[in-house]
Amino acid sequence: MYKLVLLRHGESEWNRENRFTGWKDVDLSEKGLKEAKAAGEMLASEGYTFDAAYTSVLKRAIRTLWITLDEMDLMWIPVTRSWRLNERHYGALQGLNKAETAEKYGDEQVFIWRRSYTTPPPALAEDDERSPAFDRRYKDLKPEEIPLTECLKDTVARFLPIWDDEIAPAIKSGKRILIAAHGNSIRALVKNLDNISDDEISQVNIPTGVPLVYELDENLRPIRHYYLGNQEEIQKAMSAVANQGKSKTN
Amino acid sequence: MYKLVLLRHGESEWNRENRFTGWKDVDLSEKGLKEAKAAGEMLASEGYTFDAAYTSVLKRAIRTLWITLDEMDLMWIPVTRSWRLNERHYGALQGLNKAETAEKYGDEQVFIWRRSYTTPPPALAEDDERSPAFDRRYKDLKPEEIPLTECLKDTVARFLPIWDDEIAPAIKSGKRILIAAHGNSIRALVKNLDNISDDEISQVNIPTGVPLVYELDENLRPIRHYYLGNQEEIQKAMSAVANQGKSKTN
Repeated sequence: MYKLVLLRHGESEWNRENRFTGWKDVDLSEKGLKEAKAAGEMLASEGYTFDAAYTSVLKRAIRTLWITLDEMDLMWIPVTRSWRLNERHYGALQGLNKAETAEKYGDEQVFIWRRSYTTPPPALAEDDERSPAFDRRYKDLKPEEIPLTECLKDTVARFLPIWDDEIAPAIKSGKRILIAAHGNSIRALVKNLDNISDDEISQVNIPTGVPLVYELDENLRPIRHYYLGNQEEIQKAMSAVANQGKSKTN
Repeated sequence: MYKLVLLRHGESEWNRENRFTGWKDVDLSEKGLKEAKAAGEMLASEGYTFDAAYTSVLKRAIRTLWITLDEMDLMWIPVTRSWRLNERHYGALQGLNKAETAEKYGDEQVFIWRRSYTTPPPALAEDDERSPAFDRRYKDLKPEEIPLTECLKDTVARFLPIWDDEIAPAIKSGKRILIAAHGNSIRALVKNLDNISDDEISQVNIPTGVPLVYELDENLRPIRHYYLGNQEEIQKAMSAVANQGKSKTN
């Protein structure tokens, strides 16, 4: 019935350095630029096209979208940027190395911070300069909408309004939509679409820069989903994401 | 009171080849890419920032905007693309060399086609493959909105609705707006802002890739306007635009 394409941004500088990123506005790495280009080439060669796109207000997702649209000769389609598609806010962990954090606090604690549905990482202090309250791009948010940390449940809660109010109606109107976003905002969407349990979502890992296609019925329930590209490489990439939070001695 | 910045796209491949471009979706030349980067650097170094941007659905303007926003670390601001900001449609002249056309039809005729306020160039045939009716990006336009040629008066008429309905209210609400557009859609805006007569507008030439700043009072009447950058180079660039439609023997 409908096709929706989800695209996690290509590798960022902080993905490369294995650091918790969250709302920090880091750019793509050289590898990430190539991943975005490859995603666009693959979508074009497989005959995909889009009527509109959605992305976050973070440049690693926006640049991934730009490169993809450029490769597909679709620079002209409408693009909506929203903080609701941002990566999960990582609280006080933002900037820390994942493996070093695991060495300090243990693999189990880091797995909880990374993948627990309801337990957020330690929060930023309100006066922490990393707080989104000090960033002009979030000045129109209500105070209670500005996160100092988030668990995935929080990300789902702030993502759903744009899905329900804008994206789902656009799909139902026949628009072919591309969403260029982040590991956890895509996990939030996937959990909602596939009705995945709070426990099982911890095992879902989204590789960077690989188009994820959902075929949806008339009620936007998934018929099937699949990644475009070499399936063996995609499996390796998903395992690598899962293993980022383990200490090196593990 | 308010500041509005207008930016004609950097040199395109067809600017470089001195061809009539209109709605043909040609990309920036190498020089155009550099002009866009320089515009972004200048705006950033002069302390400008923006809350929202408007552009056309043509990639030479969109890419100019992308490069400018990237240089200014403003990739996150909302961008509205509209066909109403497209270049003037050049009818059957699209693709022809300006100087060769002047040799064939005379400088005077080409000046009329380029700069007459009310005389459009020869129209495309309805079944001409260059007609916007065959381009998916214009599929939501009403049949009477799809041009087969335009004089500047036509461009003003289709530009004004987005100015009156969206851009002017945004400026009055305090938003700092950047418009990345085209020689003639900017001339349409400038004519309207400065209340320039139908005759005098023929002498206004907009150089590529140079930010044009308008300071506006509370009723959006211009207080003054100026180009950012080296004023001598800007004068040369404006003269070059004026002379594009002259035969080489002139």
